[in-house]
Amino acid sequence: MSRSSRPLAEHAARAAAMLAELGRISDAPDNLTRLYLSPAHRRAADLVRGWMEEAGARAWIDAAGNVVGRFGPDGAPTLYCGSHIDTVVDAGRYDGALGVVAALLAAGDIARSGAELPFAIEVLAFGDEENVRFPTSLSSTHAIAGGYDPAWLTRRDADGVVLAEALQAFGGDPEAIAGLARDPARAIGYLEIHIEQGPVLERAGLPVGVVTAINAAYRADCVVRGEAGHAGTVPMALRRDALAGAAEMVGAIERLAADIPDAVATVGRISAMPGAVNVVPGEVSFSIDARAPADATLAALVAEIDAACASVASRRGLDFASTPFMRAPATAMDHGLQQALVDAAKRVGIAAPRIPSGAGHDAVAMAGLCPVGMLFVRCAGGISHNPAESVEESDLGIAVAVMIEAILAVGRARGG
Amino acid sequence: MSRSSRPLAEHAARAAAMLAELGRISDAPDNLTRLYLSPAHRRAADLVRGWMEEAGARAWIDAAGNVVGRFGPDGAPTLYCGSHIDTVVDAGRYDGALGVVAALLAAGDIARSGAELPFAIEVLAFGDEENVRFPTSLSSTHAIAGGYDPAWLTRRDADGVVLAEALQAFGGDPEAIAGLARDPARAIGYLEIHIEQGPVLERAGLPVGVVTAINAAYRADCVVRGEAGHAGTVPMALRRDALAGAAEMVGAIERLAADIPDAVATVGRISAMPGAVNVVPGEVSFSIDARAPADATLAALVAEIDAACASVASRRGLDFASTPFMRAPATAMDHGLQQALVDAAKRVGIAAPRIPSGAGHDAVAMAGLCPVGMLFVRCAGGISHNPAESVEESDLGIAVAVMIEAILAVGRARGG
Repeated sequence: MSRSSRPLAEHAARAAAMLAELGRISDAPDNLTRLYLSPAHRRAADLVRGWMEEAGARAWIDAAGNVVGRFGPDGAPTLYCGSHIDTVVDAGRYDGALGVVAALLAAGDIARSGAELPFAIEVLAFGDEENVRFPTSLSSTHAIAGGYDPAWLTRRDADGVVLAEALQAFGGDPEAIAGLARDPARAIGYLEIHIEQGPVLERAGLPVGVVTAINAAYRADCVVRGEAGHAGTVPMALRRDALAGAAEMVGAIERLAADIPDAVATVGRISAMPGAVNVVPGEVSFSIDARAPADATLAALVAEIDAACASVASRRGLDFASTPFMRAPATAMDHGLQQALVDAAKRVGIAAPRIPSGAGHDAVAMAGLCPVGMLFVRCAGGISHNPAESVEESDLGIAVAVMIEAILAVGRARGG
Repeated sequence: MSRSSRPLAEHAARAAAMLAELGRISDAPDNLTRLYLSPAHRRAADLVRGWMEEAGARAWIDAAGNVVGRFGPDGAPTLYCGSHIDTVVDAGRYDGALGVVAALLAAGDIARSGAELPFAIEVLAFGDEENVRFPTSLSSTHAIAGGYDPAWLTRRDADGVVLAEALQAFGGDPEAIAGLARDPARAIGYLEIHIEQGPVLERAGLPVGVVTAINAAYRADCVVRGEAGHAGTVPMALRRDALAGAAEMVGAIERLAADIPDAVATVGRISAMPGAVNVVPGEVSFSIDARAPADATLAALVAEIDAACASVASRRGLDFASTPFMRAPATAMDHGLQQALVDAAKRVGIAAPRIPSGAGHDAVAMAGLCPVGMLFVRCAGGISHNPAESVEESDLGIAVAVMIEAILAVGRARGG
């Protein structure tokens, strides 16, 4: 039984209305595009700040452009909750915004209920999660979590605008960013709700899932070199066909990833040279994107992939070279917060499966400050970064209720 | 023992010198480019006509731009020998020219030797085999073989020049083309020597091979449709990865062709959509080029390929569609002429293997007139359509000697 002070349906309707209102704030006339420090970002931040104040928080927009709503006294240990309000170009209305709205409704509900908690709650609406406008990496999240890279302030957008100048125009303050970092000693944890952006929950028929880890990720460009030849005159037995070899590698990559629970590997790009219908390909390039919930698991998968590709190449008389260009470590979710979210879902009457996250989130940066936990909400068809992004209204209510229960559980665990 | 009137080395040296001289006649300053009816084609035709006359033939350039050198009386049954003197852009010196030079040296040798033959020999230097300048198909060969399509005369080159006008500027006569077609009743056969343009003879360590057939050819564009998805968030088990499916199809295509003697199948082009490192491909396009020495063999191979691709698609929940855009029937070489060439090689002391031709040749058109036979000469690395095209000088002598023996064998077979 949920101890939400309001029926789930009321939270659901309120969340849907807030997400619709936020979703109309865009820099583009015909779609939802709200990049970091843009005019629409500022209008959205003002709207969210107003909602925070209505909910009883002390609220402000900080020097990095984050919106902060604090429920509870300054100086107290703090539980952070939130997500981001910037979007990709031509976005959906749930990516990020759902986590901000759900955290705000949950914190407001708890505040109204008069529940005593042994910590303050800060609802955070980060501004630079998508990293579309400037070449940064969760910059505004790192401003709060620590780890802000001052070099980010000198980065330029596509129009040549420097981040520091955009921040000042927005109303922020580059000089004050260093002072935003929270004290880890008083940071209890960070809870984030986010749409799954994948199909697992929908296929399982379940509204929410508890994230186990944000997967470690690896990307590489691979090149297979064989020998180009006339498609009519070179017998099969004399070929060193780079594409036939690459195709076998693609099959091996798929099988190896499928053999490891929660790991994935994808060949998303492929091209064959010279690329003519009547020429045996002499060279093929393809990409590998591999992810797994733990660094060691991913390292093992990558090693198996490399060995399999090398074996295919050797057997076929081909050359194979793989050039990694991205390695991101896994971000493990805190076991206590995972359990709090699982238990919270149970109280709401939901069996929440534990699933990995294949995409990055603000929690990656916040993990540098404190333990982090994430709840995924199912979205239609797993579609995200697309106007077709869609979440059932009833799932919004469930998400808010689970967040309320989770916050209360964290409070009980700390003797509140 | 060869009954050539001259040592092989003398023929070899002469052939090499002639090929070098012909190879210097180009429309381009820096490479060998000699397109149909170009100024260089005319200069080359004049050179070849001169050689024919020196060898004792009555020689002329015909209305379609072919050079003809006739050894023997008008009206007599005729054995045709030759190849083409047009080239691709940035060509090698052996493709086509070797067959003309070898035929001329062989016919000249026989004429000088005083051997009595029960037929005339016409050495032919065709002009439009590569079909690079105008969108035609062996037009000048068909002028002699029959089957000339009058629509070809209206075709334009890249500069807008109409073929009929180019032919007149060259010194030809569009109106007289219809009169060039030879009488099948008096056409004994057509023998053509050509570089292999593939690696089989070189790998076998043999200088010449007897062609069994010019392979039937089939080309198709294939599309595999699955479901695009986030490379991080869609578990392997829930994917409908168009590229993983296409890769399995590429493997099947390779295996099926390898299982059929002398058949080949090639996937030369492939592209994945959307083609991003972090997106599971939702659609893949690829080409198929398949060839086999007999039409029925090719039809069976194509049916097996289609069935295998459909099976892969079905198992993976993908859509597969194949759109054929080219079907060319096989041109079988005459068994008697094959045997004459095998026996001729044996007389020269060479074991000539029988091999299919993956590429098209003038013999395809000449097969409409009379039985055809072809001898392949090994070329370095199987390389053709490239300045690096190369043939050992000693192999040139062997080719001439085999042609002499083959012509004499045809003569004996006809009671000469």
